[in-house]
Amino acid sequence: MRKLEERIMKDGLVLPGNILKVDRFINHMIDPVLFEDLANEFYEKFKDKKINKILTIEVSGIAIAYACGIRFNCPVVFAKKTSSKTLGDNCYRTEVFSFTKNRSYEVMVSKEYLDEKDHVLLIDDFLANGKALEGLIDICSQANATVEGIGILIEKVFQKGGENLRRQGYTIESLARIKGFTDDSVIFED
Amino acid sequence: MRKLEERIMKDGLVLPGNILKVDRFINHMIDPVLFEDLANEFYEKFKDKKINKILTIEVSGIAIAYACGIRFNCPVVFAKKTSSKTLGDNCYRTEVFSFTKNRSYEVMVSKEYLDEKDHVLLIDDFLANGKALEGLIDICSQANATVEGIGILIEKVFQKGGENLRRQGYTIESLARIKGFTDDSVIFED
Repeated sequence: MRKLEERIMKDGLVLPGNILKVDRFINHMIDPVLFEDLANEFYEKFKDKKINKILTIEVSGIAIAYACGIRFNCPVVFAKKTSSKTLGDNCYRTEVFSFTKNRSYEVMVSKEYLDEKDHVLLIDDFLANGKALEGLIDICSQANATVEGIGILIEKVFQKGGENLRRQGYTIESLARIKGFTDDSVIFED
Repeated sequence: MRKLEERIMKDGLVLPGNILKVDRFINHMIDPVLFEDLANEFYEKFKDKKINKILTIEVSGIAIAYACGIRFNCPVVFAKKTSSKTLGDNCYRTEVFSFTKNRSYEVMVSKEYLDEKDHVLLIDDFLANGKALEGLIDICSQANATVEGIGILIEKVFQKGGENLRRQGYTIESLARIKGFTDDSVIFED
């Protein structure tokens, strides 16, 4: 999507270690006008699917998932990384390995909010190794919910997460596809 | 706001220790239609203020803050609880004490995204002791930003956070004001 690529070129920052900093409009400050456009784009790509729930993972997936919830007119569930007094024990749980933090963390979704009647669109900000998405897919599988598709803002296609998931049959739409970095810039796939 | 009170009565759950569980529509699953109504209500209450930025705190403030960002047509910044490679050191920092978790945690906002030109609407889901809001106010103070108002979904008025902040001169609009709980129900202020 041209608009997101242009914004990444303008406001993104490439850090050592193939890290793309998009704090200025996605991960710390959010541009709601851009996010409405991004949600509209996901809607165009998935409007023929029977989607009744959006599922994402806290923290940085929440705002774009919510924007999609408005567009698809359905509830948004965000998987939690920390337990709480209100969450209780009645949860689907899975382990997600974070390469950025070099450790695993647990992800939880209450069984009250996901079940076999759900047709789910998974939404997240980044796709690189795909571990977070695999966690969400595992949770959908535990719930016998159907994954109708996966919407990603920025995919690092030189890492293998997207390729692996597509090979398993999942439909993934990434609005910006990065094939590599130079020292200070981003190379998008044609 | 009648609509939010009715939703709390219908879908909220009172847990021991004066805890109100609103996971079904705010804290774990989000109802986007309700959130648009809530953001419209905040807009009605604060539309005469000169607001150019929404500030909230991760995690559960993000979705309602984003909904307000759309309505007020301005960027949304969420304060972070964990450091990261992309956040860097150029941050305002403050300590927030959590009574729920009985410990302090650090909250950070990058200096890039808040400064003396900003007129800020603070948004959060709950107001009880007010410690999270005091942290956001401290960060605005460090940035020399102006706090134009505070929008809260659910205030526990029997705790003293709101009273203290109003006494300091802050304008707080809470869409549901709870004056107490019975064993299994909520008593709203008239």
